[in-house]
Amino acid sequence: MTMGEVHVYRDLGRSFSEWFDNVLEAAEVYDYGRYPAKGMGVWLPYGFKIRENVIRIIRELLNSTGHEEILLPLLIPEGILRKESEHIRGFEDQVYWVTHGGLEPLDVKLALRPTSETSLTYLESFWIKSYKQLPKKYYQIVSIFRYETKATRPMTRVREVTTFKEAHTVHEDFIDCERQVLEAVEIYSKLFDYLGIPYIISKRPEWDKFAGAIYTIAFDTLLPDGRALQIGTVHNLGQTFTKVFEVRIQKRDESIDYAWQTSYGISERVIASVIAIHGDRRGLVLPFSIAPIQIVIIPLFTADAYNDVISYSHMLYEMLRNNGFRVHEDLRNELRPGEKYYYWELKGVPLRIEVGIREVSNKYVTLFRRDTYERTRVGLNELIEVVKKISVEYDENLRNRAWSAFKSRIARFNNLEDAREYLNSSRGVVELPWCGRHECGIKMSELVDADTLGTPLNLSMDEVSNAKCVVCGSNANTLMRLAKKH
Amino acid sequence: MTMGEVHVYRDLGRSFSEWFDNVLEAAEVYDYGRYPAKGMGVWLPYGFKIRENVIRIIRELLNSTGHEEILLPLLIPEGILRKESEHIRGFEDQVYWVTHGGLEPLDVKLALRPTSETSLTYLESFWIKSYKQLPKKYYQIVSIFRYETKATRPMTRVREVTTFKEAHTVHEDFIDCERQVLEAVEIYSKLFDYLGIPYIISKRPEWDKFAGAIYTIAFDTLLPDGRALQIGTVHNLGQTFTKVFEVRIQKRDESIDYAWQTSYGISERVIASVIAIHGDRRGLVLPFSIAPIQIVIIPLFTADAYNDVISYSHMLYEMLRNNGFRVHEDLRNELRPGEKYYYWELKGVPLRIEVGIREVSNKYVTLFRRDTYERTRVGLNELIEVVKKISVEYDENLRNRAWSAFKSRIARFNNLEDAREYLNSSRGVVELPWCGRHECGIKMSELVDADTLGTPLNLSMDEVSNAKCVVCGSNANTLMRLAKKH
Repeated sequence: MTMGEVHVYRDLGRSFSEWFDNVLEAAEVYDYGRYPAKGMGVWLPYGFKIRENVIRIIRELLNSTGHEEILLPLLIPEGILRKESEHIRGFEDQVYWVTHGGLEPLDVKLALRPTSETSLTYLESFWIKSYKQLPKKYYQIVSIFRYETKATRPMTRVREVTTFKEAHTVHEDFIDCERQVLEAVEIYSKLFDYLGIPYIISKRPEWDKFAGAIYTIAFDTLLPDGRALQIGTVHNLGQTFTKVFEVRIQKRDESIDYAWQTSYGISERVIASVIAIHGDRRGLVLPFSIAPIQIVIIPLFTADAYNDVISYSHMLYEMLRNNGFRVHEDLRNELRPGEKYYYWELKGVPLRIEVGIREVSNKYVTLFRRDTYERTRVGLNELIEVVKKISVEYDENLRNRAWSAFKSRIARFNNLEDAREYLNSSRGVVELPWCGRHECGIKMSELVDADTLGTPLNLSMDEVSNAKCVVCGSNANTLMRLAKKH
Repeated sequence: MTMGEVHVYRDLGRSFSEWFDNVLEAAEVYDYGRYPAKGMGVWLPYGFKIRENVIRIIRELLNSTGHEEILLPLLIPEGILRKESEHIRGFEDQVYWVTHGGLEPLDVKLALRPTSETSLTYLESFWIKSYKQLPKKYYQIVSIFRYETKATRPMTRVREVTTFKEAHTVHEDFIDCERQVLEAVEIYSKLFDYLGIPYIISKRPEWDKFAGAIYTIAFDTLLPDGRALQIGTVHNLGQTFTKVFEVRIQKRDESIDYAWQTSYGISERVIASVIAIHGDRRGLVLPFSIAPIQIVIIPLFTADAYNDVISYSHMLYEMLRNNGFRVHEDLRNELRPGEKYYYWELKGVPLRIEVGIREVSNKYVTLFRRDTYERTRVGLNELIEVVKKISVEYDENLRNRAWSAFKSRIARFNNLEDAREYLNSSRGVVELPWCGRHECGIKMSELVDADTLGTPLNLSMDEVSNAKCVVCGSNANTLMRLAKKH
């Protein structure tokens, strides 16, 4: 695949993942597969800018809620990573180990961080002494490493996760951890809403929680092939790590206790979701808020009107830029206008302005919307106003469109057969009545041939009042969500 | 050391490095030494913000000169890193190797990047085909790893360099590489000027150039103890890497040739220099442009005027913030004003505004400058204007002060004895006439008991017309700079 060739598999009902791989490369977002180590990709300049714009939003959301950004070392000494036994059991198979420095073997093996609960809690044992310092909310945006043995996939299943935002908080008691979990859920909801990514929030089942957590809450979205993609997790860690690393604090009542913690993380899967969910047969469709270029101007030259068209185009460029828009003027001679349209549609630029001699003479522009393919005439005097209006509508439209597709793919059933058939036809997520017992959950997953995502938060008892567990037939007290995972 | 205890060693003529270590910790910039792996430190929230502000300037300088930010994987397969033999010889002793994934040994060992010439050039062999794409300027801001066996030091000699900005460019011919080297020198000069870091620019001697380069140009500054610190390097790489990785391009004349490259890098030593050079016995002195807090307001409460003082303070806060300043209001009850002064001076906040009942009644503020310790009265009406004026003067003052101290520490001698004595008294850099021969350069270093920094760029021949090489006595054709390196 080279630039400019996006296959329209999504329309032809062919492989979504082939479309995804192609669009990442053709739109010059992310080079995957050329790098000579499995599961590692390269952020290209255009993709880097998308990533930067997403990170900017994440930082704003976290900074405005009292989170402080820090940066910890990548390498974690073996003794620190192994200190909490449940945690290392969960990660043992996935950790990369540095064993040599230069030509010498190291005295102590060093792990590439798979996540930073252990090293940070070790440091917190020096830093945090009193309830007066709490709650304390740290975060960092770093690479994490997981030796993924399954088939790797660009951005969504990689061995180096290059955009891991991990937050780690410390609290005086369990109740404040609960409050923090809700705050984290709210922050992530805002982020996904901002980017127009639809999601369901589930409490992961016991057998699928984070290694060391009391419980894990997860956000899942759906890819166009009906597979669920986990895009965020929030963990109530209790005192698991503070006990082993001895983070003791003086409490308000002057007693000494171990501190309490939560942690929560998101990765470049957020960016992958934006691309996968909003994209179409022509390529990327980027939200206005994160598009590196929000408006592209294409001058349509004719031999006799070259100067008029180009000065009109420059004037539009200046006007839009001065109004705070990220605008680009495509002046390349070697491409015809149609090729330029194709190029910028592939790159997901939300608005295109076409200007030829008719536009110049009549003082208007022809405005094309990437999301709806609508072409309208806009008078020069009202251009800024119209663009401002569209900039808001645009992201709303993407969000509404994505949510309505998403909702149509979530179904409740009262029996295993219908659920199994639904999932086998790639429809999305099923919700089935469940008694809550571990063995029924595991069995449900086997019988439906799908993964358990967990139970809805705040489910009203009315919703399952007459339902029976689809596995054992006893009274259900919740719903289990299942899907085929990406 | 805990927060609030900075020892005034710098005034007592005692160890600069002890002062430096203490100030990093006391001002909560960087936690070094607690992390349980040698040569690795933690950026604390306050330090992270300083780092972020410096990175923002670097990005602006690079983006505005056509550099594009990318992100490459951290891990480099052994075969790629070893492909260019001179390069791997230079780095072999310093590379960390990942040998295991989970419990399994890896088929191919993976290096933690010591620098990215090899992996990027490998990718460029796919990406770059024609002169039409050139010059191409990439950069990334990442961690690099060097298994440093000498004594490690916080920020200045670490095993994980967490703020490595590496730029890599591709060109059609050698001449364009030469132009790029000058551009890079100009960019780094602007950065250091902006931050008030004085420097000399030297062409490193053959025996100290980057492994794989035709030549290396380096920026050195001086620390308060008279030791030289390398703060930036620029390499003309010629075709060293493009030949082994076969980056072939079609040239303007339609012939096919290997492309040409440069690379250049700076690290968190830039931040270390800002701290080391501008700091004083009270702690940090941060340039206005990168201070996380530029102005701190300290309300001086008295029992009967609490409300008046606090509302005046709030008003000042809003006014300064609305004018674009990074301002903080210190409302803590548990500290006395003097303790607050001490705290924010330690943190290097450029301006302090003190407001008590007298200030409120007479509509002025008391303004304290961290760099000069001057306290002045400023009328409320002229406050914004005065602060704007000082914000420019402040950084100029730091820069001028630093440059004049720096210049006074560079001396030319015509004999080895004076040079040796000068350096043994911690005075800085010496420049000695040199014939240019390798063996004389090496011998000079031994006889003076110092490191060779290299030769000045653009030295006029007049300056050495009658001089004799201090080692062999033959005619000198340049000057060799020597210093004790940090």
